[in-house]
Amino acid sequence: MSEENLEVEKEKILNFIENKKFNDLRKYLEDVNPADFPSMFEELEEEEQVLLIYRLLSKEQAAEVFAELDSDVQENLINAFTDKELKNIVDELFMDDTVDLIEEMPSNVVKRILNNINKTDRKVINELLNYPEDSAGSIMTTEFIDLKENMTVEEAFNKIKKIGLQKETVYNCYVLSVDRKIKGVIDIKELLIAERESKLKDIMDTNVLTVSTLEDQEEVAKMFDKYNMYALPVVDQENRLVGIVTIDDAIDVMQEETSEDFELMAAMTPTEETYFKTGVFKHAKNRIVWLLVLMLSSMVTGSIITHYEEAFAAVPVLVAFIPMLMGTGGNCGSQSSTLIIRGLAMDEIRLKDYFKALWKEFRVSIVVGIILAIANGIRICMQYQDPKLALVVGLTIIGVVMLSKALGCSLPMLAKKLKLDPAIMAAPLITTIVDTCSVLLFFQIAVAILHI
Amino acid sequence: MSEENLEVEKEKILNFIENKKFNDLRKYLEDVNPADFPSMFEELEEEEQVLLIYRLLSKEQAAEVFAELDSDVQENLINAFTDKELKNIVDELFMDDTVDLIEEMPSNVVKRILNNINKTDRKVINELLNYPEDSAGSIMTTEFIDLKENMTVEEAFNKIKKIGLQKETVYNCYVLSVDRKIKGVIDIKELLIAERESKLKDIMDTNVLTVSTLEDQEEVAKMFDKYNMYALPVVDQENRLVGIVTIDDAIDVMQEETSEDFELMAAMTPTEETYFKTGVFKHAKNRIVWLLVLMLSSMVTGSIITHYEEAFAAVPVLVAFIPMLMGTGGNCGSQSSTLIIRGLAMDEIRLKDYFKALWKEFRVSIVVGIILAIANGIRICMQYQDPKLALVVGLTIIGVVMLSKALGCSLPMLAKKLKLDPAIMAAPLITTIVDTCSVLLFFQIAVAILHI
Repeated sequence: MSEENLEVEKEKILNFIENKKFNDLRKYLEDVNPADFPSMFEELEEEEQVLLIYRLLSKEQAAEVFAELDSDVQENLINAFTDKELKNIVDELFMDDTVDLIEEMPSNVVKRILNNINKTDRKVINELLNYPEDSAGSIMTTEFIDLKENMTVEEAFNKIKKIGLQKETVYNCYVLSVDRKIKGVIDIKELLIAERESKLKDIMDTNVLTVSTLEDQEEVAKMFDKYNMYALPVVDQENRLVGIVTIDDAIDVMQEETSEDFELMAAMTPTEETYFKTGVFKHAKNRIVWLLVLMLSSMVTGSIITHYEEAFAAVPVLVAFIPMLMGTGGNCGSQSSTLIIRGLAMDEIRLKDYFKALWKEFRVSIVVGIILAIANGIRICMQYQDPKLALVVGLTIIGVVMLSKALGCSLPMLAKKLKLDPAIMAAPLITTIVDTCSVLLFFQIAVAILHI
Repeated sequence: MSEENLEVEKEKILNFIENKKFNDLRKYLEDVNPADFPSMFEELEEEEQVLLIYRLLSKEQAAEVFAELDSDVQENLINAFTDKELKNIVDELFMDDTVDLIEEMPSNVVKRILNNINKTDRKVINELLNYPEDSAGSIMTTEFIDLKENMTVEEAFNKIKKIGLQKETVYNCYVLSVDRKIKGVIDIKELLIAERESKLKDIMDTNVLTVSTLEDQEEVAKMFDKYNMYALPVVDQENRLVGIVTIDDAIDVMQEETSEDFELMAAMTPTEETYFKTGVFKHAKNRIVWLLVLMLSSMVTGSIITHYEEAFAAVPVLVAFIPMLMGTGGNCGSQSSTLIIRGLAMDEIRLKDYFKALWKEFRVSIVVGIILAIANGIRICMQYQDPKLALVVGLTIIGVVMLSKALGCSLPMLAKKLKLDPAIMAAPLITTIVDTCSVLLFFQIAVAILHI
């Protein structure tokens, strides 16, 4: 919903409340998409208004809306709920949403939630809570459709009709053996176009992609992207089906991992909270570590400059080129590292492609370096009428571009090789290294050519 | 598939070919996922091997595999195909994949493709080709399930059974009026759990989210993320349903838009090609424009330094702090701009939040600035025993951090306000601006405090 619509919406709702037209409000709310409630609630200033609206929703809608809310709104609501209301919500929520909720809430709220869950569900939830963070097990849901291979299509339809409502998806159904191992998967489309008397074993696809409960969620998300699936079965160590990851959760993981890469690449400690939900000191903490490290490393560059004090005392104009050289080196390195980091994340670049990538960067840096050197040479000749200076700066630029592109290509791949996140080898770190090298190179070349 | 598996796979396949065990090879290929063929084909050195393997696939598998291939492999295959083979493929492909293919191929190949498409399909394809690039119309498919509101569930099942195979998805079915306007949408789950004699009008959801054919694909992808949908109906200006966007295409758009942001943020012209598919000169061209612009702008910083020649002639150690100040400013600005750009892309930050964000960045920058100033002060006092110098550098750091965070917050939002992509206001541009300001600030403070 756009910002303007949100304003209109808010006015309407406040109007209903003011005039106590609760029946009209209830009718109105029926047509609001669950995903639009969070921003609507954010607009309302008073907590009672939120609670009032929430209590007007039907049981199913209430659960759907609840799953969409931010954790602080969820917490406020739970604290205002009666036990009966809480139980209703928890009954309606899908297992994976309940697990997400429990992971976000403070312990006193968790206790109240668990008290309002029945015993069998509590057991499942406890198991789900035990999977390591960011594993396939931690994002899967246990509510899927399981069928038997000797069923007919008609029998399968009957089973789905009976249990479908409680399942998160019916788009993919899994055919299991008695010991719950996967024999095959059936897309609901196959079921719908098959003859009613066909046996499932004749129409199921026996070639099933699965992941283990411990698989990294990033790998899971990549599989969705590559194989165009809607759900991915998750198996335990005995190869029994224990849950499925649905595509909406995979998209959330993709977005989360991308945000993490963005933050790492800008020299921050990644956080799962949104910008405004993160406090000032948390923000400062996430940013200060890298800033300190990079600040201290950039002092190396400073001491190199000090070392060449005599050179720039003799030719003071040299100092004027330092920002340009450092900036260009940083930008070149950042271009290459970004392409490599993104390529690695998208599986378009693999480790074995290292020399292929380096060779490409080498040729690109020659082209780019020469163009930049010429552009600079023209300017220097015009401004200072000093071809020797143009030569010094031009050679340095070519060297800096080549070096920064080689580092930008190599460091992310080295990180990947060392099983680190390639995104840490991004602009900030590479810039700092390139800064040092470019200043050193610059003064070396200057001393050699200008004889100072 | 991992790199090692790929090697094993290749060996197996070459073995089959060498021993002319084509029947075994065909059997083997049946179990390979269509999405694994592109990397398998890439491994094979000879084009004839690719063609041989491709001809062993069943008609349906062949079309699925074809849609996954890179455009250069597609082109080679089409050139090797007989007209009959080409017709088979094109008949099996979904409309949106055919359109993608036509957009990628050179004109002589396009002519051959169009000659092998029947007249009605050709008309649809021509219409699809006319939608603007990156619009909802350009990524939608026209193959969806349409039902009538007076049908019973049983009748709907019969229709799906008859036409389902040719449709890209059966997960969502659309209930249309006689003039093809949307009356409602039915999730296949609702259909499966409903009574067979129910009328569709009683079970359909009348509150349907739609987009216009001209909607930007990025907005379309955001809707998928927000509303957890599997398909989104696309309507023309008369509000008639003309196509649907499926979630797999929405994911492709998300990835494409994210890559574009990464590239823009690293000062590159975005490209849709993968890293290795882009030639050296294309790479150089994508990178050189921004590099030249940034290089020329960083000369402003250089001339400021020249302007203060006397200052650093008097206190040469000042120059040693320039890299550190520029680096810290750049990193701080890059942190803030990355968070804001990502927040805007994810709709977590809106334009009206500007002052809220600025106020947050202001407080963060005070905390971060003071910590960095103290760390630096300690080092300077230890190394130079010069508290006045520590004061100069410390004050400059605080100023630079505040300025860079304010710019990093403001510029992306300004870009958004001006309907530009906020990603252009990222690290490289902000760094260049901050560089200039920090050097200026540094010398101003130095002159004032050190009386030089």
